[in-house]
Amino acid sequence: MPEMMKAAVFVEPGRITLDDKPMPDVGPNDALIRITTTTICGTDVHILKGEYPVAKGLTVGHEPVGTIEKLGRNVSGYEEGQRVIAGAICPSGYSNACLDGLHAQDGQSGPHGLKPMGGWRFGNTIDGTQAEFVLVPDAMANLAPVPDGLSDDQVLMCPDIMSTGFAGAESGNIKIGDTVAVFAQGPIGLCATAGAKLRGATTIIAVETVPERADVAKQVGADIVVDFNKTDPVDEIMRLTDGRGVDVAIEALGLQSTFENCLKILKPGGTLSSLGVYADDLTIPLAAFNAGLGDQTIVTSLCPGGKERMRRLMNVIVSERLDLTPLVTHRYGLDQIEEAYEMFANQRDGVLKVAITP
Amino acid sequence: MPEMMKAAVFVEPGRITLDDKPMPDVGPNDALIRITTTTICGTDVHILKGEYPVAKGLTVGHEPVGTIEKLGRNVSGYEEGQRVIAGAICPSGYSNACLDGLHAQDGQSGPHGLKPMGGWRFGNTIDGTQAEFVLVPDAMANLAPVPDGLSDDQVLMCPDIMSTGFAGAESGNIKIGDTVAVFAQGPIGLCATAGAKLRGATTIIAVETVPERADVAKQVGADIVVDFNKTDPVDEIMRLTDGRGVDVAIEALGLQSTFENCLKILKPGGTLSSLGVYADDLTIPLAAFNAGLGDQTIVTSLCPGGKERMRRLMNVIVSERLDLTPLVTHRYGLDQIEEAYEMFANQRDGVLKVAITP
Amino acid sequence: MPEMMKAAVFVEPGRITLDDKPMPDVGPNDALIRITTTTICGTDVHILKGEYPVAKGLTVGHEPVGTIEKLGRNVSGYEEGQRVIAGAICPSGYSNACLDGLHAQDGQSGPHGLKPMGGWRFGNTIDGTQAEFVLVPDAMANLAPVPDGLSDDQVLMCPDIMSTGFAGAESGNIKIGDTVAVFAQGPIGLCATAGAKLRGATTIIAVETVPERADVAKQVGADIVVDFNKTDPVDEIMRLTDGRGVDVAIEALGLQSTFENCLKILKPGGTLSSLGVYADDLTIPLAAFNAGLGDQTIVTSLCPGGKERMRRLMNVIVSERLDLTPLVTHRYGLDQIEEAYEMFANQRDGVLKVAITP
Amino acid sequence: MPEMMKAAVFVEPGRITLDDKPMPDVGPNDALIRITTTTICGTDVHILKGEYPVAKGLTVGHEPVGTIEKLGRNVSGYEEGQRVIAGAICPSGYSNACLDGLHAQDGQSGPHGLKPMGGWRFGNTIDGTQAEFVLVPDAMANLAPVPDGLSDDQVLMCPDIMSTGFAGAESGNIKIGDTVAVFAQGPIGLCATAGAKLRGATTIIAVETVPERADVAKQVGADIVVDFNKTDPVDEIMRLTDGRGVDVAIEALGLQSTFENCLKILKPGGTLSSLGVYADDLTIPLAAFNAGLGDQTIVTSLCPGGKERMRRLMNVIVSERLDLTPLVTHRYGLDQIEEAYEMFANQRDGVLKVAITP
Repeated sequence: MPEMMKAAVFVEPGRITLDDKPMPDVGPNDALIRITTTTICGTDVHILKGEYPVAKGLTVGHEPVGTIEKLGRNVSGYEEGQRVIAGAICPSGYSNACLDGLHAQDGQSGPHGLKPMGGWRFGNTIDGTQAEFVLVPDAMANLAPVPDGLSDDQVLMCPDIMSTGFAGAESGNIKIGDTVAVFAQGPIGLCATAGAKLRGATTIIAVETVPERADVAKQVGADIVVDFNKTDPVDEIMRLTDGRGVDVAIEALGLQSTFENCLKILKPGGTLSSLGVYADDLTIPLAAFNAGLGDQTIVTSLCPGGKERMRRLMNVIVSERLDLTPLVTHRYGLDQIEEAYEMFANQRDGVLKVAITP
Repeated sequence: MPEMMKAAVFVEPGRITLDDKPMPDVGPNDALIRITTTTICGTDVHILKGEYPVAKGLTVGHEPVGTIEKLGRNVSGYEEGQRVIAGAICPSGYSNACLDGLHAQDGQSGPHGLKPMGGWRFGNTIDGTQAEFVLVPDAMANLAPVPDGLSDDQVLMCPDIMSTGFAGAESGNIKIGDTVAVFAQGPIGLCATAGAKLRGATTIIAVETVPERADVAKQVGADIVVDFNKTDPVDEIMRLTDGRGVDVAIEALGLQSTFENCLKILKPGGTLSSLGVYADDLTIPLAAFNAGLGDQTIVTSLCPGGKERMRRLMNVIVSERLDLTPLVTHRYGLDQIEEAYEMFANQRDGVLKVAITP
Repeated sequence: MPEMMKAAVFVEPGRITLDDKPMPDVGPNDALIRITTTTICGTDVHILKGEYPVAKGLTVGHEPVGTIEKLGRNVSGYEEGQRVIAGAICPSGYSNACLDGLHAQDGQSGPHGLKPMGGWRFGNTIDGTQAEFVLVPDAMANLAPVPDGLSDDQVLMCPDIMSTGFAGAESGNIKIGDTVAVFAQGPIGLCATAGAKLRGATTIIAVETVPERADVAKQVGADIVVDFNKTDPVDEIMRLTDGRGVDVAIEALGLQSTFENCLKILKPGGTLSSLGVYADDLTIPLAAFNAGLGDQTIVTSLCPGGKERMRRLMNVIVSERLDLTPLVTHRYGLDQIEEAYEMFANQRDGVLKVAITP
Repeated sequence: MPEMMKAAVFVEPGRITLDDKPMPDVGPNDALIRITTTTICGTDVHILKGEYPVAKGLTVGHEPVGTIEKLGRNVSGYEEGQRVIAGAICPSGYSNACLDGLHAQDGQSGPHGLKPMGGWRFGNTIDGTQAEFVLVPDAMANLAPVPDGLSDDQVLMCPDIMSTGFAGAESGNIKIGDTVAVFAQGPIGLCATAGAKLRGATTIIAVETVPERADVAKQVGADIVVDFNKTDPVDEIMRLTDGRGVDVAIEALGLQSTFENCLKILKPGGTLSSLGVYADDLTIPLAAFNAGLGDQTIVTSLCPGGKERMRRLMNVIVSERLDLTPLVTHRYGLDQIEEAYEMFANQRDGVLKVAITP
């Protein structure tokens, strides 16, 4: 093992640069992973811009695909050299939150074991994955072996966007025969569309204006794509549903306008499943909320993590239920990370996701 | 049967008066009920004030206790003279909404069978219960025989506030050992407190300043009552829960401040169960909502109705799990209905609920 | 309207014959349907053989596709001539069972409103669908308009086998990434396989030996077909799952051997979803049941009915998620009903389902 | 710390004796607990009799109340001397089973992380609690601090019988207003009765013949006790429910007769929640199972463990929702363990539970 490694670190708002860092010490419950592929997430862009604060000097990124370099002395059931992924969210397994099923809100050993978003550690509270190596905490809860025959690209979306997007469909408790609308078809929204199909929704209405995204939406499950630049999406969805509204509306952007539109097209008794990361207070319009009497639900989901989730998601890929490799539109070496951020943050060139390879 | 009957009708905003109305025709699926006791609900006060619009001349009220006077020709399984109640919400049973489990959002025979609050018909879209007689639509879905030995007072809360309050606990999906806060201890909030206890919550924090209401709250299940005039309820509840927050927060007032406070004390992964009828758009504070990443749920409930719900609620009374007769603080004849409204609308004299007897 | 109609009636064990019957009177909540297509179910064969008792002279069959001939005087929201289907199970909507979500166990107006299988009325407690006309009770809860563009064959499986098979997947509460085994790929089992795929199962193991059925199983969703004549299905499924067992096992035959095998391959914490109609007491093997300590669930489902269920199932067809027309392997006129029974009961000629057209 | 300790070990079928054992080494994720009180469970009697096999020389018992003697070097958030309990089931938190919510079926680091009853380690696969000291594995997932003011006796039932009994009510998914029958009022059955009340059941029928147990049953929640020696419990329960049957039947004994009776009194759509440990294959009677068409569910539960479960159960005690100290009918020192087994195994002297104090 080398003594130093390359890592993309947050320097200050507006600046993430490649730097040399010492190799981390491997604690007893940790595993050191040699990253073979990682990617950039919209959240990383918020970090870059200083909109979401992290410590200066932190390595960013939270989507690891790689091989086991070294195992902590308490970690069993794995072997060095094995190909693995880990979720963006790394639950400890032992906190009160985890034991209560709230793995993403894991406070680890705090007094009551709950912490908002506490399971999100990579590139947030500990060094992340845009580096040559990353330390996976609580490795036995988090390392998921990659099935033979799957490429890095095939599993690259599992740690975050596939898990998050699917959670939108799952938290909406979609039933066979449901009508579902998904607002925005970025990477998360596309995965929500795919998840809605996997859960049995039979009328899936995607809202998107970028033609390339609309095309991918149809490939992964949308029955109809509504272009909000050509028609009012609320009017159009109410028309498409004969005035009934949708059973489940999935918000995958993080804006007041899409949040509000979700409510406006939601049937009484329906569920707004929210995936977006919001930057401001939200307003619930009284009429769309039926003054609080509509038996409606608003549910938010943070990316489910842990090795069992990863195992299940990779099984979706193995069984050819879904192919997310079309989302990898661009590729960069780790040494081009600044260029990659520049392109991704500005959504140039029809980018959906970039593969970063150290 | 007489040809005319007395009924409290909505005349114009600010005015509900007792009037003579012709006896209604009994349709094939209807039942005519002779009201023995009914009550006034906070919603009726909104109607009185013109805040919730209904047709002029409509008989108001939606909480019937009485005896069967006459059955429609298709109605079987009941007999005239039988003591019955019906829920404030009268589901048809046959609509798509009902068949999908959304009995309160029942559009009856409309094209898709869904209508916001469509199951609420008494005193809203058809003549209500503050009268000598009321016609119960879809009687076979709605008439629930009163078990022997229960008085009118004992079952008077079943049609609305008990069903609504319990729904707050049920929609919150309270588990054994949960910590629950209930904001406001009016009749609905008190029933939510009682419902939380029946579902197994073991730390129930009621928020209320009126001493009489605080006392009843403790009788029906509250472990602690926080007086929001003496302490900041958010700070106090966070202190009481060691910074953890509550598993479920129940809003039982219908104001921005209580809605917002519910979110502020809600643990990550928790549920805000909203019962209030709001009069304005609501604001979701970004921090309390964890920017949409807290795995939190906001759920609203409209009073569950139908004869099976009423049967279950009356079984709660029969089994002595709960006694709601202390909520009947005042009594009026139907001919004193204007006086009753005046007192109830202004919450004079420590009123909780009034019994109205024709 | 004619005065008499043709109908297939149960005469005695071993004998169902075509007979002339008077046209039924249309009650206030009924609808008279002119059958355009119906089919024969395995249950009808049990009736034919006298294994399931029905009244002599009863018209058999419970899967109606047709047009509205006449509406009862209380039935609104439909028009004569409209193409409709109704489920094999006709819930009233108004019983305590229905109001509690148990539409198939509908006791209608009985004292407590529950009756085992009480929602199954066609060809069981009232005249059925293998006739020129059928009376649909509680029509407003049961008539589902056929969307434009769908043929009789396309919707013929909705009333029973599609609803039943899907219920196997739904009651198993299948999650994305689950491994599911389906024992037997007759019509119900094939629909269970399709349902498992629609719910997000990613490893679906069908157990079947008939090559034609194995082929259809793969078309509708099976990843692997295990031929129980070539290999022991328990050993093979445990091998395929690396000794883990399946998350959900669906029994679609009704025998002790398949019931038992489902338990033997069920993971701890898994669900056996049973669809079969059994003819004898069942034995639960102690070891497979982990002595009652395996957190396992056995759940049975009777075909969900009602117009909302039919609407959802037809939406599955409209959206091209599933095509069940390959299951229609044979066609007969109603006047050939005896011949159709002879062929279907003996499973000759690779029959899956027969279309019967009056 | 001493070098040796006293422990009750399984010698051979029919013989559990007190022996000297070396103090265990404390692994990095372990905690060593000094037992202050423990108890004997029915399962221990099965072990004594050789009906449930364990390794010779194993220390038996699985219900620890004590103080922290020593913490493994990776264990944080606790301090030596702290009063704690741990569940009978010790989930690791990190296995696929745990991450999927199946904490009791925890395979720890095995290939797929699932093992039937794998979470039950104390007195089964590792040394148990009937000793001066016990090693708690995966301590951070399992140690639950005892709230100030609670005595050992007050929390002694939390590790097993309270958790198990409540699970019977929880897995039955009891709703407010349900009618529930609980067969057998031994310690587990009594806790199931108490759990049914906590979940909102309003008619609770306990089946028991021993007068002392019937009395405790009424104290903890039973509305009616049926003495199966005085009346046929099936007939009596059907009479009490007007022929409807119960919503949920809880089996708390582990015999064919009680299992079967549960099914016979179960309404269509109802749930049999099974807690018993069976010794033989079970038979499901065809008629009571409605030939598989009754929408009925059979669910089994193994005692939920982990520190969050313990926290919640102790909160039930703190809030005075339930007092289980009346179940402690006898007391012995650890050095009297053989005598205690003799008395408990033979259910002499009205014994319910014995407190064992080292």
